[in-house]
Amino acid sequence: MSTLPASGAPVTVIGLGLMGQALAGAFLAKGHPTTVWNRSAAKADDLVARGAVLADSVQSAVEASPLVVVCVSDYDAVHQLLGPVGGSLAGRTLVNLTTASSTQARETAEWAQKLDAAYLDGAILALPHAIGTEEATLLYAGPQATFEEHRATLEVLGAEATVYLDEDHGLSALYDLSVLSIMWGVLNSFLHGAALLGTANVKASTFAELAVTAINVTAEYASAYAQQIDAGEYPATDATVNVHVGGMTHLVEESETLGVNAELPRFFLELAKRAVAAGDAENSYASLIKQFRKPSA
Amino acid sequence: MSTLPASGAPVTVIGLGLMGQALAGAFLAKGHPTTVWNRSAAKADDLVARGAVLADSVQSAVEASPLVVVCVSDYDAVHQLLGPVGGSLAGRTLVNLTTASSTQARETAEWAQKLDAAYLDGAILALPHAIGTEEATLLYAGPQATFEEHRATLEVLGAEATVYLDEDHGLSALYDLSVLSIMWGVLNSFLHGAALLGTANVKASTFAELAVTAINVTAEYASAYAQQIDAGEYPATDATVNVHVGGMTHLVEESETLGVNAELPRFFLELAKRAVAAGDAENSYASLIKQFRKPSA
Repeated sequence: MSTLPASGAPVTVIGLGLMGQALAGAFLAKGHPTTVWNRSAAKADDLVARGAVLADSVQSAVEASPLVVVCVSDYDAVHQLLGPVGGSLAGRTLVNLTTASSTQARETAEWAQKLDAAYLDGAILALPHAIGTEEATLLYAGPQATFEEHRATLEVLGAEATVYLDEDHGLSALYDLSVLSIMWGVLNSFLHGAALLGTANVKASTFAELAVTAINVTAEYASAYAQQIDAGEYPATDATVNVHVGGMTHLVEESETLGVNAELPRFFLELAKRAVAAGDAENSYASLIKQFRKPSA
Repeated sequence: MSTLPASGAPVTVIGLGLMGQALAGAFLAKGHPTTVWNRSAAKADDLVARGAVLADSVQSAVEASPLVVVCVSDYDAVHQLLGPVGGSLAGRTLVNLTTASSTQARETAEWAQKLDAAYLDGAILALPHAIGTEEATLLYAGPQATFEEHRATLEVLGAEATVYLDEDHGLSALYDLSVLSIMWGVLNSFLHGAALLGTANVKASTFAELAVTAINVTAEYASAYAQQIDAGEYPATDATVNVHVGGMTHLVEESETLGVNAELPRFFLELAKRAVAAGDAENSYASLIKQFRKPSA
């Protein structure tokens, strides 16, 4: 099996789950000299066949490249692996693509700073098979100079959808979760609607045509509401919260009558009623941001 | 004040709230001889100035046109107004654009049939100011032949986004509510994400850029999942429900830690855990349709 000639900056990938394998594979495909390490070495076999170097320890993996990418199950695993070899990180850049909370990301940034290592916290909005394609979005937070230094290498993983966010290391985690929340929000409402229409034997794929239009139109509303949120003023240039309460009440009743799960619209309604109670009855839907900013019971 | 020459089919509009006025105004603008009626006649003043004929009773309003459009506050109002003059509806077409449940729509269709009136139930997915523009989507359900007979007139209200759904009169209401549910689902998640990111001083309009991309990508997922729902099989070609549970758990914890409302992600998580308990842990997110099909407690 022939391999591409190595070119570009050397990179180390620690953690070879499905995602780690995809990351290392993308670097190899673009000719980056790639060192890999995994607790179970057998997962490196395919990558080694493609030209990767399997390090015999975490320390030698770290010391093989100025750029070290780690993608493991959680931050406990990150610290278990890298804690004992912290000294070797000095002068290198650690890019952590492990899923985390913003607090964990910020704490890890402090830990890296003490070790004199540059640190970027990243989030991957893509499935493993999309890594290295136009469809993979990857978000990075941390010092912009560090990001720019390694941008060309990081873009191997996601090309134009490689996004630098902010100096605050917590932001990749927050954006990641916020984007996932949008996905769940869209999908739950779609499934609820498919269940409602299913009672009248409408196919989900028939509903999907109109649903996609509705989803895209709502994206425009979100942009408009964002301006209101930033301005802190919520004029109802479209429908008022009171009007939404009316529609939500219909949706609850319809769901109950047709024997479809009514929890989703009941939750919508409860939130909107709280906004009414808070004095936002005649404001736009964007005024519900005040309810989301409050801790829940 | 000059008026456009009347052309096109005569039409009657009953109910001149903001929406009814917009409907009548759109017909007038395209030269349809337009008769109007409202409980409070003063609301017709502006329309009369633009060429509308104000009927002196519901009965004469109905008898003025072969096509009668009604848009009032609810179905009780529809029946209060039209019940006493039902005989006059014989041989005419009634288009009911009042917001309704699917049950109310079907019952009203039966009532109209007994009166020998053709009946279409419609839903307006637009604000009054968008009526008559490309941005107004209007959905119609009922006999297709009736829709086709009046298509040209009805398209005055929404042009290419005038959609005929199905012979089942209940479907305009079901589609209407399902589309609204999608809107609320998207907006709630967007507001939740804006609240999360707001704790790190990220502007909502900054978040909106990535959020819009996420919303549009999710629309593609919805289409793919629709195929699975119709086939009744849910292979996890992307993430499994178990993987989603992991992400949702992070979102709950992050929301709680940052003092942001956690009810939305808790609800996501509870639904997904139910799917796991039902044996769908390794299936795709589309398998949650089974949970939405069940009546809630």
